[in-house]
Amino acid sequence: MEIEFWFDFASTYSYPAAMRIESLAARENIDVVWRPFLLGAIFNGQGMNDSPFNIYPAKGEYMWKDLSRVCGDLQLPFTRPDVFPRNGLLAARVTRRFCDFPWVSKFVRSVYSANFERNEDIASPEIIESCLASIGVDTTSIMKEAVSHESKAMLREQTDEAGRRGIFGAPSFYVGSELFWGNDRLERAIQWAADAKA
Amino acid sequence: MEIEFWFDFASTYSYPAAMRIESLAARENIDVVWRPFLLGAIFNGQGMNDSPFNIYPAKGEYMWKDLSRVCGDLQLPFTRPDVFPRNGLLAARVTRRFCDFPWVSKFVRSVYSANFERNEDIASPEIIESCLASIGVDTTSIMKEAVSHESKAMLREQTDEAGRRGIFGAPSFYVGSELFWGNDRLERAIQWAADAKA
Repeated sequence: MEIEFWFDFASTYSYPAAMRIESLAARENIDVVWRPFLLGAIFNGQGMNDSPFNIYPAKGEYMWKDLSRVCGDLQLPFTRPDVFPRNGLLAARVTRRFCDFPWVSKFVRSVYSANFERNEDIASPEIIESCLASIGVDTTSIMKEAVSHESKAMLREQTDEAGRRGIFGAPSFYVGSELFWGNDRLERAIQWAADAKA
Repeated sequence: MEIEFWFDFASTYSYPAAMRIESLAARENIDVVWRPFLLGAIFNGQGMNDSPFNIYPAKGEYMWKDLSRVCGDLQLPFTRPDVFPRNGLLAARVTRRFCDFPWVSKFVRSVYSANFERNEDIASPEIIESCLASIGVDTTSIMKEAVSHESKAMLREQTDEAGRRGIFGAPSFYVGSELFWGNDRLERAIQWAADAKA
């Protein structure tokens, strides 16, 4: 049994979901399928040229306070990034290209920590290189492959698939054909997968 | 200690919150302050002339499925209303005018059941009268008072207050100056109030 985890590296509530999903799923013997996509492209398709959290300031102000509370409750470190949303394109290309590699979950968590714990610019290749280096993989070859035409096309196609499958925000989870949206639904999605397996 | 419950009778996720808040709060000896407002006016102020669930169809389709799942998990009956959003103006005027009366919580739940359990037109005075009648209060005098100039002004002022205090959706909960948004945050808001009391 699998849970598909659809996420964007700039997405705020994807941070607590990304940090927790692998260990929560493992308890139920459920595999995580890592599916990065570009949420900005989905928002553009809805006629928005920025995050709704920036377009609607009251909603944005609340989100930062709520996210801080949520991370506190989960004992996750949190620093509000001084740029939002950060451009997660390069990190998403790396993740898409190497999504089946055993190190990918560590890389995903490393990038989220860079953005939401250390307030680092994840749009910068140097930061992504340091995330890769920190997990002990071959940085040079991975960085080169991540920006190949094929890797770029793989991420574009995955973002298109998100739109086709009715994904409108992040984090989202698919268990079979059942969609769950938001960090608040992570436990419910895993329970759904566990029930389906039983 | 009090929890302010800000809600709109058309709001989908306000339904499970409205049905649960009084009993959850009572366990912690916390009083509920019933604060209806007009969410449509808040959306208008954000440049939206309809519910975001109608403006963004993928989000709307998900919401109906998720709400059905949420109500199932809570063992709350649920029928998708065939009009959305329904006009809750009259019910909100009744609630605002009589918010301190001991029967108001029963009335609120009766209107939510009409909309989301029995799929009844809560914009209709006859339905609101039947909600009042079902809880055994003096329907005629209440209906007359609910549409007085003073009652109308009270609801307008409360909706203005929602905007001033940064409320951008429903259900919302205030515990002192701490804002919580969404049925998913009801338990956390009550815990916040209980912690503040201790």
